[in-house]
Amino acid sequence: MQALLLVIGDEILLGQTIDTNSTWLGQELHAIGVQISRRMTVRDNLSEIVDALSYGWSRYDLVIMTGGLGPTRDDITKTALAEFFKVDLVFDQGTYDRILRIFERIGRPATEAHREQCFMPSNATLLPNAMGTAPGMWIEENGRILISLPGVPYEMKSIMTSAGLPRLKTQEGLIPIFHRTLLTAGLGESEIASRLGTFEDQLPSHIKLAYLPSLGQVRLRLSAYGGQAAEREREMAHYAQMIHAELGQAVYAEGDTTLEATLGELLRSRGLLLATAESCTGGAMAHQITSVPGSSQYYLGTLVAYHNALKIEKLGVSIADLETHGAVSEPVVRQMVRGVIRAFNADVAISASGVAGPDGGSPDKPVGMIWIAAGNDKEIRTHQLKLGKDRMKNIEATAILAMNELRIWLLNHPEITGKGLVF
Amino acid sequence: MQALLLVIGDEILLGQTIDTNSTWLGQELHAIGVQISRRMTVRDNLSEIVDALSYGWSRYDLVIMTGGLGPTRDDITKTALAEFFKVDLVFDQGTYDRILRIFERIGRPATEAHREQCFMPSNATLLPNAMGTAPGMWIEENGRILISLPGVPYEMKSIMTSAGLPRLKTQEGLIPIFHRTLLTAGLGESEIASRLGTFEDQLPSHIKLAYLPSLGQVRLRLSAYGGQAAEREREMAHYAQMIHAELGQAVYAEGDTTLEATLGELLRSRGLLLATAESCTGGAMAHQITSVPGSSQYYLGTLVAYHNALKIEKLGVSIADLETHGAVSEPVVRQMVRGVIRAFNADVAISASGVAGPDGGSPDKPVGMIWIAAGNDKEIRTHQLKLGKDRMKNIEATAILAMNELRIWLLNHPEITGKGLVF
Repeated sequence: MQALLLVIGDEILLGQTIDTNSTWLGQELHAIGVQISRRMTVRDNLSEIVDALSYGWSRYDLVIMTGGLGPTRDDITKTALAEFFKVDLVFDQGTYDRILRIFERIGRPATEAHREQCFMPSNATLLPNAMGTAPGMWIEENGRILISLPGVPYEMKSIMTSAGLPRLKTQEGLIPIFHRTLLTAGLGESEIASRLGTFEDQLPSHIKLAYLPSLGQVRLRLSAYGGQAAEREREMAHYAQMIHAELGQAVYAEGDTTLEATLGELLRSRGLLLATAESCTGGAMAHQITSVPGSSQYYLGTLVAYHNALKIEKLGVSIADLETHGAVSEPVVRQMVRGVIRAFNADVAISASGVAGPDGGSPDKPVGMIWIAAGNDKEIRTHQLKLGKDRMKNIEATAILAMNELRIWLLNHPEITGKGLVF
Repeated sequence: MQALLLVIGDEILLGQTIDTNSTWLGQELHAIGVQISRRMTVRDNLSEIVDALSYGWSRYDLVIMTGGLGPTRDDITKTALAEFFKVDLVFDQGTYDRILRIFERIGRPATEAHREQCFMPSNATLLPNAMGTAPGMWIEENGRILISLPGVPYEMKSIMTSAGLPRLKTQEGLIPIFHRTLLTAGLGESEIASRLGTFEDQLPSHIKLAYLPSLGQVRLRLSAYGGQAAEREREMAHYAQMIHAELGQAVYAEGDTTLEATLGELLRSRGLLLATAESCTGGAMAHQITSVPGSSQYYLGTLVAYHNALKIEKLGVSIADLETHGAVSEPVVRQMVRGVIRAFNADVAISASGVAGPDGGSPDKPVGMIWIAAGNDKEIRTHQLKLGKDRMKNIEATAILAMNELRIWLLNHPEITGKGLVF
């Protein structure tokens, strides 16, 4: 099934808004076997929208529109649909009743604009919107389908997840696609590619492997095209197993999770309390760790010792080592781990110290040289990173790689457990 | 001048890559008076690209293409251009010489694919690429212009900034646009809109005011269309002055800076040392403050006391107050400011404690209730925030609003200065 994605909105063309809806729709539709062949973004202008519909309706099996369903004068998608399909806009009492109930609940009056919002093209079936006032619409004519969705991302996603995608999945002409995603951290894309070279040569032609890299991490997505679910799932399990065998501990999970959640679960299940001691990452470790709901069950806090005086005073880093080796050195990150474990009464800790850039490098400690450490008060694993010149990328990547360092340390020390929070 | 933006790439349609190029181009072109009327994204497929060119070339004054200029088999933009314009691809020795020099410098051999990259449509003028191997192209026929650019963002931006935009600016048919942007923090979009209601009624029709909101902040962009630069700049200065008068301290700067950089400059110029004490923000304050290069000149560090025991032990928060008022309370954020100033030997500090969510709320302390504080050891300003249910948004917004709280505090205490770093 070939689809056109038709995005409505001046703010997107002007670059005031990044169009994340299209990214999400591309992924979700691909996953159910719908190929987005083209994406068109047009202005909030009636003739432009009708022109784009004329272009797309005859060429594609499916047209998905986002935007232009709100209550303001700019929102003209329904008028354009009525004009294009030569149908009337008819008042939908059910939608109006629902809007009135929403406004009653929040104690404000609905406006005339909200009543206007309830006129729908007569050939549309409504897709309920649990998150807002404007329902989605499903129009089917001559074997072709059009879906119109609000531009607000969480409303769009809610309608597609609850109604749009399930209904699309029942259509004919879909090539089923099966996915399995392995999440890795700590290995670069080219290193993984070289380790998986032989494996990739063995893949049958109906199975593809995609590399989806982000800072410090690569997601590996196996996709199988066509065939029966049970058979494909057996195959994918087999190939996923081969990747696990090849990449070992670098694979931290499968599916829809994150490194910080995986590390959190590892700590919680063992009753271990984590603290962090940061310098160049400036709180980014703590920020990522606490992005996980419930992280207060295993995370005590961080000390960002941006200044050397704090490293000495609060973390017990040796003045002699700071003078001999400098703040960006292995002894210092080791002492930061031990110091924050003692200071915060933690079981395990991670630390980082480096030159985040863009300035401040020297010949022996260039921008991008960063030391990380992870462990407990007895045994600490350290690692020297050589990153690039981009300050924010260096900070984010260091936080990711330091969390990964602790994850590996924990896997290699399965006997170490704690008592959890007792306060 | 009306433009079509033609984006080439399967990875964008599949949602594997977010198309940030289009956002940047939308902003930059709008700023010089070029209106992107439509954006089309098509697959890496010869007939699809030629079809899109056929659609766009006759309808628009300018077509800008991104992507498909690399050395791999997927990269077929030049073939499509040659086919569409019915011209030959001719070898460009200058480009090849430059590629050979790049590879000589990095000590690797250029491949046959790189030689292939040097064939260019014979009707194209090349736009030099200082950041990579593939030059941009400028094609002009019958008063229409086509610009083809690589998809790698920093190469695309480099070519446009150095060659594409300057050359476009000399074209006829551009309506000059003049911008002036005021940056505000701490006021909501609707509050600003109500305060500026009278002001907006007075704006002449050739001047528009756009609201560009982000978490805790709103950028206000004045745009003047047409006319002479000197006259427009005088007008804009006048209207900017009116906005300053209406919004007062909420306007923290004009132009291209950030709240964290503005706060940093304020601290540095007064020789004040900052520390932060965080709970629910979990390092996000530190992360934003240290995103500014050179922040080590005024920022000492943070203590994230995610756990109450650390609030008591490291920040001197009173056990009695924690029991009576709870961790999310005004006395606790006050004591966190005082505690971290004492612990880190800082001049000023900010703190936050709240329920970031999505769970953990109670009837009197619902998700989104967050206390922030800012000040020195003598005088502290506090504020209760009532935010939403989204954990990450609450964390980011709190960090922004707490930095803003200190900025306002500093503006109201111009007499307070420090000695800077003496370590």
